[in-house]
Amino acid sequence: IKKRNISVEELVQGVKCNDRAFLAQAITLIESNAQKHKDKAQQLLKLLLPDTGKSIRIGITGVPGAGKSTFIEAFGTMLCEQGYKVAVLAIDPSSTLTRGSILGDKTRMERLIQQKNAFVRPSPSGGALGGVNRRTRETMLLCEAAGYNVIIVETVGVGQSEGMVRDMVDFFLLLTLTGAGDELQGIKRGILELTDAILINKADGENKVQALQTASLYTRMAHVFQPITDGWTVNISTCSALLGEGITEFWQTVRMFEAETKSSGVFEQRRLQQQKKWLYTSIREELEQRFFSQPEMRAHIFACERDILQGKKTVTTAVAELLTYYEAL
Amino acid sequence: IKKRNISVEELVQGVKCNDRAFLAQAITLIESNAQKHKDKAQQLLKLLLPDTGKSIRIGITGVPGAGKSTFIEAFGTMLCEQGYKVAVLAIDPSSTLTRGSILGDKTRMERLIQQKNAFVRPSPSGGALGGVNRRTRETMLLCEAAGYNVIIVETVGVGQSEGMVRDMVDFFLLLTLTGAGDELQGIKRGILELTDAILINKADGENKVQALQTASLYTRMAHVFQPITDGWTVNISTCSALLGEGITEFWQTVRMFEAETKSSGVFEQRRLQQQKKWLYTSIREELEQRFFSQPEMRAHIFACERDILQGKKTVTTAVAELLTYYEAL
Repeated sequence: IKKRNISVEELVQGVKCNDRAFLAQAITLIESNAQKHKDKAQQLLKLLLPDTGKSIRIGITGVPGAGKSTFIEAFGTMLCEQGYKVAVLAIDPSSTLTRGSILGDKTRMERLIQQKNAFVRPSPSGGALGGVNRRTRETMLLCEAAGYNVIIVETVGVGQSEGMVRDMVDFFLLLTLTGAGDELQGIKRGILELTDAILINKADGENKVQALQTASLYTRMAHVFQPITDGWTVNISTCSALLGEGITEFWQTVRMFEAETKSSGVFEQRRLQQQKKWLYTSIREELEQRFFSQPEMRAHIFACERDILQGKKTVTTAVAELLTYYEAL
Repeated sequence: IKKRNISVEELVQGVKCNDRAFLAQAITLIESNAQKHKDKAQQLLKLLLPDTGKSIRIGITGVPGAGKSTFIEAFGTMLCEQGYKVAVLAIDPSSTLTRGSILGDKTRMERLIQQKNAFVRPSPSGGALGGVNRRTRETMLLCEAAGYNVIIVETVGVGQSEGMVRDMVDFFLLLTLTGAGDELQGIKRGILELTDAILINKADGENKVQALQTASLYTRMAHVFQPITDGWTVNISTCSALLGEGITEFWQTVRMFEAETKSSGVFEQRRLQQQKKWLYTSIREELEQRFFSQPEMRAHIFACERDILQGKKTVTTAVAELLTYYEAL
């Protein structure tokens, strides 16, 4: 299938029938940087748009070690066994630096991968954060067109990807560890306030008591913040992904969230706002990318930076000069 | 003084001598949108740059009603009496909408205004957030050149100005109210994590016990977040601006912060990073401003937005079309 030049129409049909080989091929097209692939990818997406948007999109974040893989495997397998079709996409901006995704590990989620209703796609490597954003969103749309009705977008909890994932999902979960003091400091600035639910994982054995105490602290803290989703109070619970405890309850929370926000209109409103925001964010990223990637600009920008830090030039003057130079290119 | 056309050299001398009329004139120049004023303002700033940067810059935020004016008046007056020269600048992005600053009220800070060592400047009105940012930063530099050694930048706690203020000050204070539950929900998302200190104001009379309880909750919460300033633990205390209690202690905290961060190099490092960030932020704002303010672009952007929301066009296609159109203008 990879060698032959498949037409857009064939791909549309293949994806709609949830032929995994066609879906994988379509995603490869989305991830390609070649212009002819980009054009074909956009034609494909446009034809599939009417079939998108019908899933529940769940974002999951947490520091490395919080047990995200184990949790997603337990959660995804449970959903597959209930008849849901589950796609797991991973965002790992660090892989753009290390040129190898830590999520690419084939041994991850072995049990989930064997489910016929599951589709697990590691993070696309290479490219800037804007590129990762576009690829993940478009891959999500392809998966929806292929009939997946639960999309899980996982972020590795390093870098700046949480805000990006929040902006593409309906429900955002922070998976964290039990503990207090130093361990809690692992939570990144701003993350707590993006979440619809916080699950304290590894609430088993000797950890259980402490996990419940941590849940109680988070519950008090949650009252301090304005909820990110209108009308929804952040749900705070414990779970043990290892023992499979708290997984059913988490899914009930998601379903309750979906029912309530759909009935209040908040669900649809967020989807529309996410679409709009994506347009404006993409325009900004493209404007910046064109400016900063101009080889002629680099030396000028660095010279301005140096003059500013040495107190020889004001920022306002530097910006005016740089823009004049850019527009004359 | 306002009618005559004062030369840049006269302004430089006037500001350096801390002649208030010249300082006010210089700030008016910075705030002007006329091109000849802009050019003159930048010449002035360039000549004054060697005399800037020698103050401690303190940002203060808090919801309306937290008692910021009363606090700043008590704090500023105390500093003036100790021989410090205090400049108070206000940022009020809402005034760009209402066309009248709620901070422009002449009756505010009556006691402080009477101090010969104090300079209180209400928020400049009009213009976008980027403009407010530039004007406030440049006004701060003028005040430093005029010899003010404590600069207080106040934000009214509405809108999106806290991150902007955080990026231009050395020390950031959240002034908040005593209380729990609903009252605490007034704290805006992300603010808590920007602060170097939280002061619970109105800790007097019947409120005192509750204020101490709130301080204790914040102290536990502070452990959850990574501190915004390397090596500094967020300071949480109570005060009563009305009774003048806790004001001396706050100043001691600021001095301790200054001593520690200067000795560790974090102070200077932050200043350099703020300068760099301001350059890059200004470039981005200018690129966006030029794109979005093009009258020819507006109709195209709105058409794309509509097509996207109706599922007729992909975001990627829309962005490519819009950028092609823009570059052909």
